[in-house]
Amino acid sequence: MEFSKDLLLEIHKHIKPFINRTPVLQFDFINNLCNCNVYFKCENFQKTGSFKIRAASNALKSLSKKSKEKGVITHSSGNFAQGLACASNLQNINAYIVMPENAPRIKKNSVLKYDINLIECKSTLEAREETTSNILLENDLHFIHPSNDIDVILGNSTIGTELLEEHPDLDYILAPIGGGGLISGIAIASDILSNKCEVIGVEPKQVDDAYRSLKSGKIEYNASTNTIADGLRTNLGDINFPIIKKLISKIICVKEDEIINAMKIFIEKLNVVIEPSSAVALAGLIAKKELYKNKKVGVVISGGNVDLDNLPI
Amino acid sequence: MEFSKDLLLEIHKHIKPFINRTPVLQFDFINNLCNCNVYFKCENFQKTGSFKIRAASNALKSLSKKSKEKGVITHSSGNFAQGLACASNLQNINAYIVMPENAPRIKKNSVLKYDINLIECKSTLEAREETTSNILLENDLHFIHPSNDIDVILGNSTIGTELLEEHPDLDYILAPIGGGGLISGIAIASDILSNKCEVIGVEPKQVDDAYRSLKSGKIEYNASTNTIADGLRTNLGDINFPIIKKLISKIICVKEDEIINAMKIFIEKLNVVIEPSSAVALAGLIAKKELYKNKKVGVVISGGNVDLDNLPI
Repeated sequence: MEFSKDLLLEIHKHIKPFINRTPVLQFDFINNLCNCNVYFKCENFQKTGSFKIRAASNALKSLSKKSKEKGVITHSSGNFAQGLACASNLQNINAYIVMPENAPRIKKNSVLKYDINLIECKSTLEAREETTSNILLENDLHFIHPSNDIDVILGNSTIGTELLEEHPDLDYILAPIGGGGLISGIAIASDILSNKCEVIGVEPKQVDDAYRSLKSGKIEYNASTNTIADGLRTNLGDINFPIIKKLISKIICVKEDEIINAMKIFIEKLNVVIEPSSAVALAGLIAKKELYKNKKVGVVISGGNVDLDNLPI
Repeated sequence: MEFSKDLLLEIHKHIKPFINRTPVLQFDFINNLCNCNVYFKCENFQKTGSFKIRAASNALKSLSKKSKEKGVITHSSGNFAQGLACASNLQNINAYIVMPENAPRIKKNSVLKYDINLIECKSTLEAREETTSNILLENDLHFIHPSNDIDVILGNSTIGTELLEEHPDLDYILAPIGGGGLISGIAIASDILSNKCEVIGVEPKQVDDAYRSLKSGKIEYNASTNTIADGLRTNLGDINFPIIKKLISKIICVKEDEIINAMKIFIEKLNVVIEPSSAVALAGLIAKKELYKNKKVGVVISGGNVDLDNLPI
């Protein structure tokens, strides 16, 4: 699939009214530590606390007239549930969100702040999928996948569009890889809007499916999901993997203690609260800082939804 | 004393190389909560984690040639110690910092990162003053007071200069009052650079010396310093009080639970780490939000140096 600059700008223009233009922050502490100029794109200051509202806003905006009338459904207990809940209210579209019954109260509440249909199901993947499918059929809904959906990916491209608009001379953008929706959107933006910026993925060693997928050329899966970066436990999908294969040449894998250390730096030194998945990208930069010496590096902070009572630091 | 727009811009230009231009952030959560447009000036992202480096940078810049050669001295165990330590290194001026021997290790270390002379003394005010005075005389140094010094105050004016440059149509700026150096600087900037912006002070009820001073017309003192906002326990001085008397017409007093609530909002809802003294200004806005309905309100976040292990939230 080919995309144009006009399309990316059009998408950005369309979803602008529903999202925040998040700030790009710089910190002497990090620039000195890494010997380069780092530009943090702060999606932890985004509506609903993560970038997912960009994805959801564009997916809703792109629906057929019929689907807009009938409504949408997703299953998620994480940031995409919040993003879709908020976006659906802003665009006045009916949304169903399927969540496992054992999801933490706090996550249910953050979705119930919005006027949506919350459906609880047993906590197995089968139950989630069956429940989703039943309600979808019953109500003739459109399913939106949190990461493996081209409109979700293009919604995420707006992070790259904004970052490169403000800092067109970036040499690199580092972003975390989980389901692959975030990085493939940013990679599309960078490919079209910059003639030199390279997008690098960062992933926890414990769930290095994307690293292995890039190496083997086919989608690999994780045997366990034993990482603190709870947003990055998912696997790539058949829509985003071809984009990643084409546009991403490198993925850095980081250890759990490196993620925790980066989280500590964010909260203690930079005064910014982020979620563990967001610490991953900074951890990658610190681990490989000699590669980025004197360069201009964008780092995507994907979100800030973290339980402060259970900080690992 | 009269100041001009040219002077304020000149001061800003002079200290620019030594400080960060801190971001001004907006949050839907706060705008919705308070029914107004709030612009947070984030000095918690400033070098050394607080606005004090603005004060120190201008005080050093304004020294006589002789004092620049001999050096400066202050006594502080708080943000001014760090601000002066960093600023003195950046301007290559010898600095002596007197700290009580029982100051927390973490505070000593944050000053010892810089190339300065740290002098420890007994923890009484008398010991501090005597030690400072002895070393000052021995080394022929210039004393810089953290808040009651006109160059310190003018250094702080740059917060107002930057905020009003970006948002010239602010109706109000809310800032915490402790020693009075921060708010008097901002009030000078607002008085000169805006024809409508009113600067409002916010102070913990437990240390309402400024509120009482403004009422009685003379400097009042606190009987106790029993507030979580450790940066605001000090009293006004003879240099900043006349400015405050002339330019500040209103001080809001907030209770300790209101400060803690505002701190909770910052960290949990806005993903921004601030120190208790900074939460005070937001607490004042929330307490009196009906007064600011539909207005444009700047709120100064003075710093982010807080011990995360001892958060009151």
